[in-house]
Amino acid sequence: MEDTQPNDPIAELITNYHELNSSIIDELDEEPSPLEFMRYVARNTPFVVRGGAADWQATRTWTVDYLKDFLGDELVNVAVTPAGNADAPTPYTSPDDGSTTLVLAKPHEEDQPFSTFLDYLTTPPTPTGAPPSTNKKETRYAQTQNDNLHHEYRALLTHVPATIPWARIALCRSPDAVNLWVGNGASVTALHRDSYENVYVQVAGRKHFVLVPPACQAGVAERALRSGVYVRAGDGGGGGDGDGDGEDREKGGEGLRLVLEEGVEPVPFATWDPDRPEVNATPYSRLVQPMRVTLEPGDMLYLPCLWYHKVSQSCSPEGVCIAVNYWYDMDFTGPLYPLSTFVRSVSNQRK
Amino acid sequence: MEDTQPNDPIAELITNYHELNSSIIDELDEEPSPLEFMRYVARNTPFVVRGGAADWQATRTWTVDYLKDFLGDELVNVAVTPAGNADAPTPYTSPDDGSTTLVLAKPHEEDQPFSTFLDYLTTPPTPTGAPPSTNKKETRYAQTQNDNLHHEYRALLTHVPATIPWARIALCRSPDAVNLWVGNGASVTALHRDSYENVYVQVAGRKHFVLVPPACQAGVAERALRSGVYVRAGDGGGGGDGDGDGEDREKGGEGLRLVLEEGVEPVPFATWDPDRPEVNATPYSRLVQPMRVTLEPGDMLYLPCLWYHKVSQSCSPEGVCIAVNYWYDMDFTGPLYPLSTFVRSVSNQRK
Repeated sequence: MEDTQPNDPIAELITNYHELNSSIIDELDEEPSPLEFMRYVARNTPFVVRGGAADWQATRTWTVDYLKDFLGDELVNVAVTPAGNADAPTPYTSPDDGSTTLVLAKPHEEDQPFSTFLDYLTTPPTPTGAPPSTNKKETRYAQTQNDNLHHEYRALLTHVPATIPWARIALCRSPDAVNLWVGNGASVTALHRDSYENVYVQVAGRKHFVLVPPACQAGVAERALRSGVYVRAGDGGGGGDGDGDGEDREKGGEGLRLVLEEGVEPVPFATWDPDRPEVNATPYSRLVQPMRVTLEPGDMLYLPCLWYHKVSQSCSPEGVCIAVNYWYDMDFTGPLYPLSTFVRSVSNQRK
Repeated sequence: MEDTQPNDPIAELITNYHELNSSIIDELDEEPSPLEFMRYVARNTPFVVRGGAADWQATRTWTVDYLKDFLGDELVNVAVTPAGNADAPTPYTSPDDGSTTLVLAKPHEEDQPFSTFLDYLTTPPTPTGAPPSTNKKETRYAQTQNDNLHHEYRALLTHVPATIPWARIALCRSPDAVNLWVGNGASVTALHRDSYENVYVQVAGRKHFVLVPPACQAGVAERALRSGVYVRAGDGGGGGDGDGDGEDREKGGEGLRLVLEEGVEPVPFATWDPDRPEVNATPYSRLVQPMRVTLEPGDMLYLPCLWYHKVSQSCSPEGVCIAVNYWYDMDFTGPLYPLSTFVRSVSNQRK
């Protein structure tokens, strides 16, 4: 790993940013006013509201049994990966020449009855030494980010506010999407960023965020990755039969196979992992001071647009991790978006 | 002038910025709420409130006679230049070798009775052909930017609000400075920028702003300029005798001489003039789309921090141009300041 040069504008940018901005997240003990929130938006700076959603119906009532009673055998879309690596940079070995490259691995997606999915999530892994047939072969995560609380989970929609009032008033808009996330400790969301102002609310279990500001783009080692998708072994790529029953699980037992997607343009994606900072590092990665925050049930996180975030999770005593997030379209006017693009362009030219 | 290259990140930045942001200023017909103002701060985007200060005592009462009655012979600091070029890049010819360089010309400063100063401002220039003794030899501008309404002009302080409520509430701070500006059409403030959120209020006459956003830094041709200062011809550099009487004016008649300041580090200063866009242009200047706005008496301008601005003025029927501005410290946290510094650093390396 080569070192940065003196008077390197990119190194100065990251250093300056950190000199002016704390890497310890602001903690509020009540929800902000729209004006207080807008000050954070203006500074593109995260905060957490401890217990801000403690009184929500979702936070108070969503146990596994309650959700099963409520949604039962409704089919829900489930992302299936071998190791919780949905939408993550993953080594791919070519069957042709044995060479290994990093690809962006998309999950296998299939519909499963919600109760079957919850049963799978909450079945504890068999202790080492037990017969492998009963062990978990794959990781499942309900993580559709398509405004799913207005679609497949609409029965639960009234258990959370339709919008976050201080965000709606400040940003002058309703959320573009309200998403439910249901998984367990095996899923990790790799470092990436979104063009949304994000209010993230923990309902059950805990979420561990590692946050990297847009100014530190040169440290996250974005690379143009080809995309791959997991298919069930033996499948032609079409997934299981979609009912998530034993047959599917058995196919899972046979393993998931990563297949390159043809005709898909490579997309730039962060390959640096702030939890393994020596791997895939750029000369700038060592300058990055990630912000870390763990959300407890009832906590709300403001995750500003364009911040990179890696998310891992710890289960509730029942073995699940449940969250709801509100995405508000970011404002592309003003200097932040073009300046962030500029940082990326300059960084790419230095590679 | 060399052209920009394809995939030049700086050219892309300026182009992207303009594609996403209008160059026509937002016009409000009433003052914003603190939240509405904070949305503009977040977007680092100017607006004008037409007639927002029309009811201020200053706007209603400040005629030349009224001000003379009020302040009379109080001594005030006056910036004196040959052609209205206080703090402006100005050609300097070395007496040693006859070479000419651009320097940042500071005005000669002297104290004058306020009524004498106003008389000088409002005396019309003698028509061409008249005896030169009665003609104006210099430009005078009361432009101290040291919170002067709390100091030399404190008698006028109660004629304007102590603070701009929506700015104070939004920014959580009182103004760092409240400044009075009194001049005439001969003075022009050269393109420059300040680390302040600025609320600029026109009281008499008109001000013509040309505004250039921070993302366009590479187009303003910043150069490290040595500084010079005007001294009255015949002076050792100490100025006139400071009473602004006929003796001083006569010295003015003898002309002002620009003297290099020794031992002063060169400072980076914009040398591009958006009104003469071919002169001192960089390859990026032609991409810049300046925003133009003229303030009428009673209008308020929000001039966001780090925006370059050139300001010229037109007199009231009485021959003066009067304004008041409120400077609020900018927030150095968040991405704007380090990213603006980054733009400057990358631009400097391309020179």
